Amino acid sequence: MALEGIEGAGKTTQVARLAERLRTAGRAPVVVREPGGTPVAEEARQLLLHAPHDIPAASEFFLFLTARADLVQRVIRPALERGQVVLADRFELSSRCYQSAGRGLDLAKVEAAIALATGGLQPDLYVVLDVPVEAGRARQRAEGKAPDKIERADHGFHRRVAEAFRNAAGPNILHLRADRPADAVHEALWDALAGRFPQTFSQAAG
Amino acid sequence: MALEGIEGAGKTTQVARLAERLRTAGRAPVVVREPGGTPVAEEARQLLLHAPHDIPAASEFFLFLTARADLVQRVIRPALERGQVVLADRFELSSRCYQSAGRGLDLAKVEAAIALATGGLQPDLYVVLDVPVEAGRARQRAEGKAPDKIERADHGFHRRVAEAFRNAAGPNILHLRADRPADAVHEALWDALAGRFPQTFSQAAG
Repeated sequence: MALEGIEGAGKTTQVARLAERLRTAGRAPVVVREPGGTPVAEEARQLLLHAPHDIPAASEFFLFLTARADLVQRVIRPALERGQVVLADRFELSSRCYQSAGRGLDLAKVEAAIALATGGLQPDLYVVLDVPVEAGRARQRAEGKAPDKIERADHGFHRRVAEAFRNAAGPNILHLRADRPADAVHEALWDALAGRFPQTFSQAAG
Repeated sequence: MALEGIEGAGKTTQVARLAERLRTAGRAPVVVREPGGTPVAEEARQLLLHAPHDIPAASEFFLFLTARADLVQRVIRPALERGQVVLADRFELSSRCYQSAGRGLDLAKVEAAIALATGGLQPDLYVVLDVPVEAGRARQRAEGKAPDKIERADHGFHRRVAEAFRNAAGPNILHLRADRPADAVHEALWDALAGRFPQTFSQAAG
């Protein structure tokens, strides 16, 4: 499954909490974060975050896909084949929201390119952590995180991205209110996952 | 215009000859080579040629597109807007032949992704330098060039790529026999371009 949402929604915290609780329950989850997770994906990440000059929206998108294609082939598919649970901190819903809704790249072409990167692999479930855009940014500032290039983009961009996440819908997309304490979000998230995948996210565990 | 063809077809030599003759005729052509030509594109090139491990075909493709999108935005479009002639050593026909025909990526998705990279920009003309696949590889070996990752790929791959170049057809694709001395190829190429773009490639120049 993949956790999605804007910056400061709490994805990384919640992925870590899920992984910890699964480990306690005797599972061996694999945690992945986009972009990154393989040597090539980390080089693509470095180039994304520290490019020597501004890059076009399409180049940004293709660096994310460079990383994703390698991550899928080297990490995610082998883990799934071993029967492990994969917890992803962002996946392709982020591309649709940031690169298409946010940067204005054509959605049909974005989806075609994503399908080349993933070979059509989709998470069983996306959980979108919903927070108001200002709350997310305020949380990031409170944590003292230096904004990277994407986080420094203009406010209109962030509003379009947030709206795209808010409106994301589909049989494998679930929304969860995340403007509340991390413990409460974790419990609600675990319950939602237990309802959907009872064999993995047992109600008793934790 | 873009020169295309398999390794060892003589593209780089012919681009240099064209550029030299255009300069002599008082033109200021801009020469570009894929992948490369901007700081970010060169970093993508380094990662392509010297990745720390084998990368999936899709990641390879996306690194080419990272470079192409940046090259189009930072170099090619500004040059065309200034009225300069752009001579490209490879462009999107190479993606179709190497990444789709060669590596097996779905052609429609490849074309959608390319369109994101180029914004739909196409050369006025592709000239494909046709040489038999063995002649091209022999020429490379004779020049003492160390084969890079793509050049080391298996023979079946190179046959599929060569066949795709040979079969490439369209209103903006011209084929030229290139299994002959560079001078003869240059004269035939210049004549073909002069016939098509008489104001740029004057018959008298050179």
